[in-house]
Amino acid sequence: MLLEQIKKENDIKRIPPENFPQLAQEIREFLLEHLSRTGGHLASNLGAVELTMALHYVFDLPKDKIIWDVGHQSYTHKILTGRKEGFDELRKFGGLSGFPKRSESSCDAYDTGHSSTSISAGVGYVSARDLSNEDYRVVSVIGDGALTGGLAYEALNNAAQLKRNFIIVLNDNKMSISENVGGISQYLSNLRTADSYTGLKTEVKRTLNKVPGIGPAMVQRIHKTKDSIKQLFIPGMFFEDMGIKYLGPISGHDCGRMIQVLNEARKVEGPVLVHVLTEKGRGYEPAMRHPARFHGTAAFDLEHGIPLANRGKANYTDIFSTVMRKFGDREKKVVAVTAAMPDGTGLKRFRNMFPERFFDVGIAEEHAVTFAAGLALGGLIPVVAVYSSFLQRAMDQVIEDVCLQNLHVIFAVDRAGIVGSDGETHQGCFDLSYLSMIPNMTVMAPKNKWELSDMMKFAVRHNGPIAVRYPRGAAYDGLEEYREPMVYGKSEMIYKGKDIALLPVGSMVKTGEEVYHLLKEEEKNPTLVNARFVKPLDTKMLDSLADDHKMIVTMEENVKSGGFGSAVLAYMHERHPQIRVVIAAVPDAFISHGSPDVLKKEVGIDALSIYKKIKEAYKG
Amino acid sequence: MLLEQIKKENDIKRIPPENFPQLAQEIREFLLEHLSRTGGHLASNLGAVELTMALHYVFDLPKDKIIWDVGHQSYTHKILTGRKEGFDELRKFGGLSGFPKRSESSCDAYDTGHSSTSISAGVGYVSARDLSNEDYRVVSVIGDGALTGGLAYEALNNAAQLKRNFIIVLNDNKMSISENVGGISQYLSNLRTADSYTGLKTEVKRTLNKVPGIGPAMVQRIHKTKDSIKQLFIPGMFFEDMGIKYLGPISGHDCGRMIQVLNEARKVEGPVLVHVLTEKGRGYEPAMRHPARFHGTAAFDLEHGIPLANRGKANYTDIFSTVMRKFGDREKKVVAVTAAMPDGTGLKRFRNMFPERFFDVGIAEEHAVTFAAGLALGGLIPVVAVYSSFLQRAMDQVIEDVCLQNLHVIFAVDRAGIVGSDGETHQGCFDLSYLSMIPNMTVMAPKNKWELSDMMKFAVRHNGPIAVRYPRGAAYDGLEEYREPMVYGKSEMIYKGKDIALLPVGSMVKTGEEVYHLLKEEEKNPTLVNARFVKPLDTKMLDSLADDHKMIVTMEENVKSGGFGSAVLAYMHERHPQIRVVIAAVPDAFISHGSPDVLKKEVGIDALSIYKKIKEAYKG
Repeated sequence: MLLEQIKKENDIKRIPPENFPQLAQEIREFLLEHLSRTGGHLASNLGAVELTMALHYVFDLPKDKIIWDVGHQSYTHKILTGRKEGFDELRKFGGLSGFPKRSESSCDAYDTGHSSTSISAGVGYVSARDLSNEDYRVVSVIGDGALTGGLAYEALNNAAQLKRNFIIVLNDNKMSISENVGGISQYLSNLRTADSYTGLKTEVKRTLNKVPGIGPAMVQRIHKTKDSIKQLFIPGMFFEDMGIKYLGPISGHDCGRMIQVLNEARKVEGPVLVHVLTEKGRGYEPAMRHPARFHGTAAFDLEHGIPLANRGKANYTDIFSTVMRKFGDREKKVVAVTAAMPDGTGLKRFRNMFPERFFDVGIAEEHAVTFAAGLALGGLIPVVAVYSSFLQRAMDQVIEDVCLQNLHVIFAVDRAGIVGSDGETHQGCFDLSYLSMIPNMTVMAPKNKWELSDMMKFAVRHNGPIAVRYPRGAAYDGLEEYREPMVYGKSEMIYKGKDIALLPVGSMVKTGEEVYHLLKEEEKNPTLVNARFVKPLDTKMLDSLADDHKMIVTMEENVKSGGFGSAVLAYMHERHPQIRVVIAAVPDAFISHGSPDVLKKEVGIDALSIYKKIKEAYKG
Repeated sequence: MLLEQIKKENDIKRIPPENFPQLAQEIREFLLEHLSRTGGHLASNLGAVELTMALHYVFDLPKDKIIWDVGHQSYTHKILTGRKEGFDELRKFGGLSGFPKRSESSCDAYDTGHSSTSISAGVGYVSARDLSNEDYRVVSVIGDGALTGGLAYEALNNAAQLKRNFIIVLNDNKMSISENVGGISQYLSNLRTADSYTGLKTEVKRTLNKVPGIGPAMVQRIHKTKDSIKQLFIPGMFFEDMGIKYLGPISGHDCGRMIQVLNEARKVEGPVLVHVLTEKGRGYEPAMRHPARFHGTAAFDLEHGIPLANRGKANYTDIFSTVMRKFGDREKKVVAVTAAMPDGTGLKRFRNMFPERFFDVGIAEEHAVTFAAGLALGGLIPVVAVYSSFLQRAMDQVIEDVCLQNLHVIFAVDRAGIVGSDGETHQGCFDLSYLSMIPNMTVMAPKNKWELSDMMKFAVRHNGPIAVRYPRGAAYDGLEEYREPMVYGKSEMIYKGKDIALLPVGSMVKTGEEVYHLLKEEEKNPTLVNARFVKPLDTKMLDSLADDHKMIVTMEENVKSGGFGSAVLAYMHERHPQIRVVIAAVPDAFISHGSPDVLKKEVGIDALSIYKKIKEAYKG
C-alpha cells in the first residue's frame, strides 16, 4: 500500500510519479470505502484525486497556499496532509470537517464552503506576499461551475490588473452540482474542443493550412504579424486579453502532464490559468452516471451505488417539489429560479415537466434575485428556491431590486436553521434577521409538511415580496389536525392555556409541542401558538396573550439579534411591559458540523434546554 | 428651442434627426443650467445625452423597456419623458428623484441606484415577455464600470444561455466614478482601438492583406473556413463566444450612427451587445477635465466649474482620509481597499502617497471583502472603505470569509444612516442590523470627528473583524472635551444624571445632546452616555444605569429590527426588567430623498420627536 507511506504533507514527494496511478487508485478505494459508510461529497472528490496529487507534488505545503474553491473537493488534500484517520468521523460532531479548516491543519490556507471565493482570496494572499517581500506560491483551484459566480469574475478582473505571480487552476468537469449552464460554460466548451494547448495551436494551424494557398510559412508569418491576429493561435483568449496567461486544456487525470504544466505555470510571470479537464465521479461507475446524486451523498451500498438508509419520511424539499409541480399545472404565471441547484432545491421535477418555466442561472444567487425582479415586472410570479446560507449572497438584491420595488417574488428558503454535517458555512441561522429588517418583506415558516404547502399557496396569492423558510431534513407530520386557513399576519392557536405562552417559529413548533408536554407533566397549563408569520408580527394575538399570561417564550432556529423573539420583545415591552419574554434562539457563534439533534442540544434550543430555561425564568 | 417641443415621451420622434445636434446642445445647456443650481449627477448625464436621444428615437416608450444601470445617467431620459419641470426640485424632499422611479413615470421600467443590475433585470423582462407571448423590446444600458461588477457577468452568462431577443448597450466611457480598472477594462480597451465594427473588420482584413501572399480572395476564404477563425474578424469575441452578438464600437455622440446600429440590433435574433463609446462630462470642459469631481456635484459656478458652497466644516470622509494618511506613515501593515470609489471614500490621498498599498478592485464589493480576507491571512491589516448601502452586497463575504475565519479586517463604513438626496437606494439604515448579527464582529460608531480618528486607531490594534460606521456630511465637532481612551466594549459617560438615561449611537450623540438640553430645560437631570460600541454591548454600563434610572432611551440611525436599541432591550429585559427601554430608530420603511434634516424629522429621529417620545413614555 503506497497510501500507508503518506503520514503527513509532502510525503507524496517520496513516491515516484510513475507509481501515481496506483496511489490514485488507492485513494479512490479509500474514499469509496469510507464515504459509503459515512456519506459525504463523493463525486467531486473522485474527480480531483490526480489533480490534488499533482499539486502536492509540485508545491510545498504549508509554505505554499492551495485554496480550494467551495472546499468540498478537499478530501484527497486531507488524506495527503495526515488526516486519513479522521475519515471515520467525517462531518460528525467533533470530527473531521467536510471542508478546509485552518484549525485542522496548517496546510489548509483558507476556510470555505461557499462558492467562487478562491480567486479573490488568492489575489489577497499574493498581494500581501509581495508587499511583505515573502516568497511563496498561491494556487486557487476553482471549478467551472464556481466560475459562473460573479465573485470569481470580479477576482479575475482584479488579478489581471495586479499582475502578481498567481496560479489559478480551473478544474473543469462541465458540472456545477448539476450540469453547468450559461455563456461562460459555452465559452469553456469551445476551449475544451482541443485536447492540449499546443494541440489547439496545432489544430488551428492545420485548419489554416487547409485554406488553399496558405502554406506553413505563411502561417508562421501570420503568427508574427499583429496582436489582433494572435487570438487565432490562442485558446483562452478572453483570459489572455484580460491579462491572464492561459495554459491548457490538459487532462486532469494525467499526473505526469499536470506536473509538467504546473511546473511551467510556476515559472510564469504574472497570473496564469491552468485549464484542467476532469471527470466528476471518476473511477466509480454509479457516480459517473449520476454525478449530481453522488455530489453529496448519505451512506450507500458500495456495490450497487444505492443509498443504504431507507428514505423514510418525506422531507420539506420533497413537499416543496410537489407543490411546485402542482403550481406547474394550476398557476400558469409561476416560474422557478435556481442558482445551480435543481436537485438540492427540489425543482428537478418542475424542470422536467415545465422546462420553459424553469431557470437555472448558474452559481449566481445575486443574479437569480435581480432576474426574478425582472420576471415579476414582466408579469410572472417567480419562486426563487435557494438555501438560507446562500441567499445571504443576494441580500442587497433582495433589498434593492425586490423589496424596494415591492415586487411579488417568492423566496423558498430551504436549509434554514441548523443544517448539520455541512457545518459553519451552511447553517441557515441568519435569514430571519436579515429578511425581517427589510421593509415590505413578509417572512413565514411552516410548522409541518401540510403548512409548507399551504404557505406556498398563500405566497402565490400574496402580492409582494414573501419568504417561506423551512429546514433540511424530514418534514414534521404531527399536528395534522391543526390546519387553520392562512390569513395574512395571523398566527395559529394550537393549545389555549394560561400563564405561559409558547410561541415557536416553523420547525420549532415541534420542539414547542415537546416543551408543552414537559410543562403539562408538572400540571402547568401552557398555551402553544404557531407563529406562522415572523414578519409582520401578529400583534392581536400578542395583545390577547397579554391578558392571561405572565410569560411568552419564543423559539426559533435563528440568531437572537434581529430575530423573531427580538421583535416580539420589542412589541411586548412597548405595549405590555409587565409580560416577561423569554427568547430561545441560536447563540451568537458559528455552529460547527454534527447531527442537527446534537447541535440543537449543544446550543440550547432542544426541548429540555428550553424547558429548563423557562423554569428558571418563571422562578425569577 | 427644440426642447420646448418635447412635452412627453416619443415627442422626440417628431424632430428630424438632422436637428439632433441642436437638441443635444439644448439638453446639455438645460442640464448645466439646472444642475449648477441644484447639484446632481452631472458628468455621466452629459455623456449620455445623444445615446438617450437615439434610444428614444428608435424605441417606443413605455411599451419598450429601457433599463438604466445605476440610474444616475437618466436625466435626459427624464427630460424626454415630460419631467423637465421637475428639475427645479431635483433630489429634494418630495421632488424629482435622481434615479429612475416607476412611481414617477410609466417610462421608467426599473428602479435602480446600485450598480450592475440592468442586464439581470433585462433578462428577467425578456423571459417574462416571451413566456407571456408579448411583444416589446428590452434595452439594458450599462456602463463599462458597472460591467466590472460580478452581477453583470452572471447576467451576461444567463442572457447568453437563454438566447432571447435582448439588447444590451454598453455605454463605455472608460470610467467608473473614477478611472475604470481591471482586466475587463483592458479587454474593452482592446475593442476600443477600432472606430467601428465594420471598421475593425476592415482593419484586420487590411492587416491580413499586408501579409505577403494573402490576397482579398484568400481573406474571404479564411472568413468562410471555420468557426475558430471567425474570431479573426470579430471584435468582442468573448461576448460572441458566450453567445452574445457584438456590434461596435461606435461613437456615442453620433446620433445618426447610433440610430442605424440600434435599428440593426433590433433585428438581431438573440442577445446583442452594442458597444458605444462616450465621453463623461461631454460638452462642459471642467467636467471633462475632472469627471470624478463632477460625477455627483453640489451646486457650482457654471462659468468656472467651482463649487458654490463654501466647503465649511470637515466631513467624516475627510477625517477618515487624514487618519489613513497617518496610517500610511506609521502603520506599515495597513492597506486600503475600495470598490471603485477612491474619491468618495476619501482614499485618494492614501492612493497618491502609498500606491502600492492601495487597491481599487472595481465595482466589486464582494471581491473587495474576500480579497481583504486574503490580505489579512497574508499578514496585512486591510481597511475596506465602503458605503453602508454598498456593503449590503458583500454581507455573505463578511460572514463567511472574514468573520467565520475571525480575520482582522477593518470596515470603514461611510454614508451610514440617512444620506439625503440620493434617496432610498443609498440610505445606510441596515448596517447595524446585518453587521451585529454576525458572530465575531465588532461594531462601533463615533460621536464626533476626534472619535472617528480614535476608533480607527483602536481598530488597527484590535485583532478581529471590526466595523466603524459614520455618516455622510459635516463631522460633528462638539463635545471635544470628552475623549476618554477607547476600551474594548466600553461606552463613554458624558453627563451623569438620573432617572432618564440617553444612550445614542454615533451621529445620534449630537441629537442626544439636544434632547439632553430639552430635558434639562424642564428641570430634569438626565444621563447622556455615548454608546461607542454597538457590539458588544457595554453590559457593565447598562447594569450601573439600572441602579438609578427608570428609563433608557437608545437612539440610532438604523432600522429598529436587529439594531442597537433592540440589543439593549434584550439585555435589559433579561437582567433588569423593571427598566423601561425606549428605542428611537428609523422606521420599517424605505426612506426617500431629501435633506437629512428634513428626513430625520419625517421619520421621527430628530431631537424634538425623540423628546416628545420620551415625555409620552415617561408619563406611561
